[in-house]
Amino acid sequence: MNKKKKIKAAILIIGNEILSGRTQDKNVAFISNWLNLNCGILVSEVRIIPDVEKIIINNIKLLSKEFNYVFTTGGIGPTHDDITAQSIAKAFKVKYKFHQEAYKILENYYGRTKFNDGRKKMAKMPETARLIYNPSSAAPGFITKNVLSFPGVPSILNSMIENCKKYLVKGLKVHSKTINLFTVESNISKQLATIQKKHKKQVDIGSYPFFRLGKIGVSIVYRSTSQKKLVQVKKELMELVKKKEIKILNI
Amino acid sequence: MNKKKKIKAAILIIGNEILSGRTQDKNVAFISNWLNLNCGILVSEVRIIPDVEKIIINNIKLLSKEFNYVFTTGGIGPTHDDITAQSIAKAFKVKYKFHQEAYKILENYYGRTKFNDGRKKMAKMPETARLIYNPSSAAPGFITKNVLSFPGVPSILNSMIENCKKYLVKGLKVHSKTINLFTVESNISKQLATIQKKHKKQVDIGSYPFFRLGKIGVSIVYRSTSQKKLVQVKKELMELVKKKEIKILNI
Repeated sequence: MNKKKKIKAAILIIGNEILSGRTQDKNVAFISNWLNLNCGILVSEVRIIPDVEKIIINNIKLLSKEFNYVFTTGGIGPTHDDITAQSIAKAFKVKYKFHQEAYKILENYYGRTKFNDGRKKMAKMPETARLIYNPSSAAPGFITKNVLSFPGVPSILNSMIENCKKYLVKGLKVHSKTINLFTVESNISKQLATIQKKHKKQVDIGSYPFFRLGKIGVSIVYRSTSQKKLVQVKKELMELVKKKEIKILNI
Repeated sequence: MNKKKKIKAAILIIGNEILSGRTQDKNVAFISNWLNLNCGILVSEVRIIPDVEKIIINNIKLLSKEFNYVFTTGGIGPTHDDITAQSIAKAFKVKYKFHQEAYKILENYYGRTKFNDGRKKMAKMPETARLIYNPSSAAPGFITKNVLSFPGVPSILNSMIENCKKYLVKGLKVHSKTINLFTVESNISKQLATIQKKHKKQVDIGSYPFFRLGKIGVSIVYRSTSQKKLVQVKKELMELVKKKEIKILNI
């Protein structure tokens, strides 16, 4: 028997630039895929909130209680609108102060003469924080209790994420399979519902319309922590496809 | 004096495919930009949640109280995992039943013989719902109290959004300006903080690093409902740029 459990995470995107629509978020899809593939952790909620201290504090308190892990992105740079670290310190009622190792890393990186106040700010963290090293631009992310904080710039975040693995308890990976069909959802909705009902507790079946080469299609995505169950569901889906004489784009 | 007020909206993205990272969300940026430009409505929070009835109901209850409007995307199609309409009906304790006009629209679109149960499901809505017409694929969106429900497919959502305008009270538009500089954030963080502090109540100043043609830069984005205030902030930013001898990429 597999002893691993379902481990759930939330992502908290902190930044007016995402909320306003100026910047297209790319971190949700990256973190979610990475967590499932590498750690068997399931992202179960995402929130995008503005750079407002009170709102950040409330969300950290709430999400860190509700989920095994919270991943924050954004707000850990050198400018006035970067208030993630101080807000997390307030949420957990710990001091906000220089992290010795982070201070040394940044001092080495910039050199003593160029290590100004803005740059020093990036070494200030909640007192209990442990570092998540940053191979791109030195300024580390950090973990405070079960909250992991990353910068918002996708290329930097992507380069750092492997370095948080050691802090995470691994869970059951969710395997995902897709069948792409040339049909419309309403042609198969009744039968799909029957298959979903039968495997309710162990397989999630989703149905998503697509348009390709001027043709309408449907992607059937079925997901489970059990590979065996996926084989069973595939068999039932293929029977449906055959019965309805639906053309398959790919499996 | 302008009588318009700040009107705030939340976006609730309903769908396992976005949470799992399989599908990249594009609706947040589109809705947020559209609402600000066309209606002066500010998106102040976004949540992405799974296709789970209890979670949808809780979020609808909470967000519809906290914000002037809630925009939902996803979960209004014909399949078993489309449960947005019934969840909203439960959240507001109204009946979930066929909407006569929506039923007629869909019956006309598909023709009586092809109007099967899956397609009929798309005409079921909360009893008090009013329609948001859909020029792409017929199946209407709808508004229930202050909650506006759209499909998740971006091209269909984009084609429908103009049709919800009549239901919305317009607010103050937030104007946004950007200066792109070839510098690093920590070079200007102190002075930016001073400018932000001075205009705290009326202008939001954000600072976002970028990489272009192998060079590092910073976008300064400043936003306000007052054009006058933006002119003043621009003046102060240009003084900073001149003093620090920073190269401007564009304004």
